[in-house]
Amino acid sequence: MHLTKEDIHNLERIKRLNIINSVSGIKPANLIGTKSKDGQTNLAIFSSVVHLGSNPALLGFVMRPTDDVPRHTYENIKETGLYTINHVPVSIADKAHFTSAKIDREVSEFDRCGLNEEYLEDFSAPFVKECFLKMGMKLVDEMPIQINGTILVIGEIQHLLIPDNAVNEKGYIDLSLYNTAGISGLNNYYSLKTESSFPYARAEEIPDFGA
Amino acid sequence: MHLTKEDIHNLERIKRLNIINSVSGIKPANLIGTKSKDGQTNLAIFSSVVHLGSNPALLGFVMRPTDDVPRHTYENIKETGLYTINHVPVSIADKAHFTSAKIDREVSEFDRCGLNEEYLEDFSAPFVKECFLKMGMKLVDEMPIQINGTILVIGEIQHLLIPDNAVNEKGYIDLSLYNTAGISGLNNYYSLKTESSFPYARAEEIPDFGA
Repeated sequence: MHLTKEDIHNLERIKRLNIINSVSGIKPANLIGTKSKDGQTNLAIFSSVVHLGSNPALLGFVMRPTDDVPRHTYENIKETGLYTINHVPVSIADKAHFTSAKIDREVSEFDRCGLNEEYLEDFSAPFVKECFLKMGMKLVDEMPIQINGTILVIGEIQHLLIPDNAVNEKGYIDLSLYNTAGISGLNNYYSLKTESSFPYARAEEIPDFGA
Repeated sequence: MHLTKEDIHNLERIKRLNIINSVSGIKPANLIGTKSKDGQTNLAIFSSVVHLGSNPALLGFVMRPTDDVPRHTYENIKETGLYTINHVPVSIADKAHFTSAKIDREVSEFDRCGLNEEYLEDFSAPFVKECFLKMGMKLVDEMPIQINGTILVIGEIQHLLIPDNAVNEKGYIDLSLYNTAGISGLNNYYSLKTESSFPYARAEEIPDFGA
């Protein structure tokens, strides 16, 4: 199958959404937790968290336009400057998925979807108790993406919470150990199986691939 | 384990790189193919491709700073405005990984790593023959990320090439069918297993999660 730019534009809307949301490859399943100034918590699944740098430790995620529908996550981050990013294990993929429903601001997705809040002292945003890897984030920048009105929200890791045995002496984190989920498209969840680990790639150590 | 911002800053550099490159969750394994104006091809693995929008169909990826080392991918994209994004199957993860070595500009990673170029008429950037899902991209914008000197490179899909049977009638793409790889950190490759598919989440259809 070969779809041109025009073919993609002419696809039925839902089919286009499903296809184009799958073509970047596997996406991480993360829950973003926030709390408004007046104390209302919010939880939402995002598949667009992306590594931006290690020192300082920066992660970005993509917010869809805020002018058409309410974006509670974004509003809370703007109010408090804080949020959490929590890895979704496959075992709670169903609960995590349903946080994407449009729920009134007065109702917390934690309650509605059966997930539990957890807190650090002096950090107001809620972590997800059921997640094994969780990060407390501080907003450092946001970049409007002019061409389609999305926003790249950039945060720095303030707190990284992770079970000791999930990190080895090199700093590798085994995502399969706690059954971290991946997503393709908008609705499809995958488990991960470790296949291989390669050394840092040096030109003089490239194997003979029979080129 | 609880690492604060200061603990992360004080980690040994390589350990910090490994840890922080893992905390966004599973990352997609993509090869980006380019060709310079004078005809030299380049191929490089990226784990930062991210969905930005479906109409127009936009993908971003993060380039590290260009002032410290040569960035052939970026230079070629700036010269021609074109590049390809190709999903890495687990079967060629080793070859794909070694494209990250610093190789002289005069040597193509296609040759050095044993991968084959493939072309569309009227599109100069090289696709990777061994990949099942491949896209011809046109540069539409680039956004400097001030805080750490990285660049979000934004492109629009011009061509989407994919086997017919990988897309179902809804537009879902089964990433496990052609054994698409995921990455965590800088060196660790995963295969994907389909676990579940959930409907579009509507508030009135949220299951009773016993909240």
